[in-house]
Amino acid sequence: MKLIEPSFKIEHAPAYFDMLDVIERAARTCYKSENKIKNGSAEKLIRSCIKQGHHSILEHCSITVRIACDRGVSHELVRHRLCAFSQESQRYCAYKDDVEFIRPYWFDESVGTRDWTNPSEHTAYSALRDAERYYQDLLVMGVAPQNARAVLPNATKTEIVITANIREWRHIFTLRCANAAHPEMRGIMVPMRTKFANLWPVFFEDLMM
Amino acid sequence: MKLIEPSFKIEHAPAYFDMLDVIERAARTCYKSENKIKNGSAEKLIRSCIKQGHHSILEHCSITVRIACDRGVSHELVRHRLCAFSQESQRYCAYKDDVEFIRPYWFDESVGTRDWTNPSEHTAYSALRDAERYYQDLLVMGVAPQNARAVLPNATKTEIVITANIREWRHIFTLRCANAAHPEMRGIMVPMRTKFANLWPVFFEDLMM
Amino acid sequence: MKLIEPSFKIEHAPAYFDMLDVIERAARTCYKSENKIKNGSAEKLIRSCIKQGHHSILEHCSITVRIACDRGVSHELVRHRLCAFSQESQRYCAYKDDVEFIRPYWFDESVGTRDWTNPSEHTAYSALRDAERYYQDLLVMGVAPQNARAVLPNATKTEIVITANIREWRHIFTLRCANAAHPEMRGIMVPMRTKFANLWPVFFEDLMM
Amino acid sequence: MKLIEPSFKIEHAPAYFDMLDVIERAARTCYKSENKIKNGSAEKLIRSCIKQGHHSILEHCSITVRIACDRGVSHELVRHRLCAFSQESQRYCAYKDDVEFIRPYWFDESVGTRDWTNPSEHTAYSALRDAERYYQDLLVMGVAPQNARAVLPNATKTEIVITANIREWRHIFTLRCANAAHPEMRGIMVPMRTKFANLWPVFFEDLMM
Repeated sequence: MKLIEPSFKIEHAPAYFDMLDVIERAARTCYKSENKIKNGSAEKLIRSCIKQGHHSILEHCSITVRIACDRGVSHELVRHRLCAFSQESQRYCAYKDDVEFIRPYWFDESVGTRDWTNPSEHTAYSALRDAERYYQDLLVMGVAPQNARAVLPNATKTEIVITANIREWRHIFTLRCANAAHPEMRGIMVPMRTKFANLWPVFFEDLMM
Repeated sequence: MKLIEPSFKIEHAPAYFDMLDVIERAARTCYKSENKIKNGSAEKLIRSCIKQGHHSILEHCSITVRIACDRGVSHELVRHRLCAFSQESQRYCAYKDDVEFIRPYWFDESVGTRDWTNPSEHTAYSALRDAERYYQDLLVMGVAPQNARAVLPNATKTEIVITANIREWRHIFTLRCANAAHPEMRGIMVPMRTKFANLWPVFFEDLMM
Repeated sequence: MKLIEPSFKIEHAPAYFDMLDVIERAARTCYKSENKIKNGSAEKLIRSCIKQGHHSILEHCSITVRIACDRGVSHELVRHRLCAFSQESQRYCAYKDDVEFIRPYWFDESVGTRDWTNPSEHTAYSALRDAERYYQDLLVMGVAPQNARAVLPNATKTEIVITANIREWRHIFTLRCANAAHPEMRGIMVPMRTKFANLWPVFFEDLMM
Repeated sequence: MKLIEPSFKIEHAPAYFDMLDVIERAARTCYKSENKIKNGSAEKLIRSCIKQGHHSILEHCSITVRIACDRGVSHELVRHRLCAFSQESQRYCAYKDDVEFIRPYWFDESVGTRDWTNPSEHTAYSALRDAERYYQDLLVMGVAPQNARAVLPNATKTEIVITANIREWRHIFTLRCANAAHPEMRGIMVPMRTKFANLWPVFFEDLMM
């Protein structure tokens, strides 16, 4: 059994320069104003389109992210419909050695400790440890992973690769960084939004305000 | 703790006559052949469109179903993107009394027994029973349901209301009744397809062959 | 040649009572609060969900509309992606008799007149009349309708059947009734929004304010 | 007035190597088989996934194309719902000089000739020429471009930038290269499919057979 932290990693994105260029040329197609392209014109145009709500131009570039989260969070993530998803399958993966769980965000204890001072953390930890044992007993008895998955808890770690276009990422951040979102979700999405805004300010900076 | 069987229930559907009528009129709009509408013309036209692959006309009518399944199955279901979903939330629901689990399809024992002759069933049963106890202990300690959900297993029963149009239901049946689908999924989808084909033969009968 | 007014007609919708019922039951599935269903509870719940932005529940019911508009408007309409469309095809329909055109909204003259006092209206009218002649000449010469369509202008009338769920209709009204929308589009969508708000106030009334 | 040929141009695509890499890593996430990545493993895996119908992995990479076509073709193109579109707007563009038309595919005459031997070509050519005159007269009279567009015919050239993922491009080619497709559509899509298959064989080669 391993408790790990949730995480994200940018798996693939076009160069910033290319994204600005593709989106500027797409936007200017609408107005046949390609002759206005010059140094710095993309940033200005795109900021203005975002402000005016002409967001469809942001659909021309996509960013791919790999997320490690628990299965409660992933069940919410896949409700977004304008994304491509490839997710670790509990049908085809058999966790014969350690089962990995996402450390619940409300644990004071850091990953690795077993010296629980907090009874609720001790209880949750025991629940995960027992679930792992039951799961592995089932595998040993010959139960197929896709059947043994029945006993794996929501806290089980899953990996999911998500590709979404810029407009959809903006929508995801708006929903999933809000106060009403699950804290585990916010724990992933808030730093991801910051990262995106640092890397590609024209597309995401206004979401930071 | 309760073990229950997965189930589905048709929550809402237009009258068969209305569906035939709406779809016929939509289809005939393409060809401006409304003057050919007469008794029995809808069935003939729609069967012919389905055979020729002109399936977009089937998007004009939707059917709503309520499904009780486990969270492994629901995590797969919500990957379908052309549906409306409303799902029981483990963030907002607190299972203070019995937690309900879907009886794993591979149990020989019927719901209700505790006289296990099969060690793997006994193991799985114990896993679910222990998970319930841990979960309820956490609630008693004041952990919020959205945090305590971490220990609830995939087998936990969930309810989900799904609305999809006829074309999308056909697509769902094609994928989810296939041999490669998870047996728990097929256990719901195969009888649902039969039910649909009985109620609305023109739209689903060819999937039964 | 016929000049006609754009129009819409509700082709199919579930009974208001049924829509309220289906959506209430779907919404209450999320919170397992079905026991709170009573007279008037649906209206209250749905208004509250709309106010809080919990709009996904509105996807469970769809409304089908038949619109007669010009091909400029229909080209914009089919950009909405969460709709079902069935549109009169200029490939398969041959307009051997009158070609119908949508009277441009900026004509002072009513449909039927030929006593043009306004030179721009006279010019536009002549353009449509000539286009009709060229089109019909091509048909007579044996050119297939799908090739002769090349000379038909945007003003040509088209019929399109659109099915969208309530959430999507709300989105369509927000975009297409705005001041930035094309006046021909607003000419259809503004009265449609009023009609919807009259028929199904809980779902659309807030858009009228 | 200018008659031009339809055309397409690849506006942006990730490097082939990157696409293979992103898609392989996404696919292997499902099975946690990342340790099998080596030289040539991506091609083998992806071909096998395509053959087995595991096409969702192809959604992780997108290709952007710029198409010049007539407005009849573009009206069909925008019916594809899983694409991003940015299209030249007849509301915001005013064609004060030449209006460009797509040379109808059924013209024997090459672009530029006016020495018509074929009466149907002469008729169609005259229709386009007259439409241009009426349109420009309206502009001169002060009619706004978004109103004057009423008289522009389907043959009017439009530019459209389309971004779609690999799975969707495969779907588009399947529909739009078929014999039932409009010849103008096939005239663009068949060479585009060949181009795609040459550039990125693993993703498109099987569509050429």
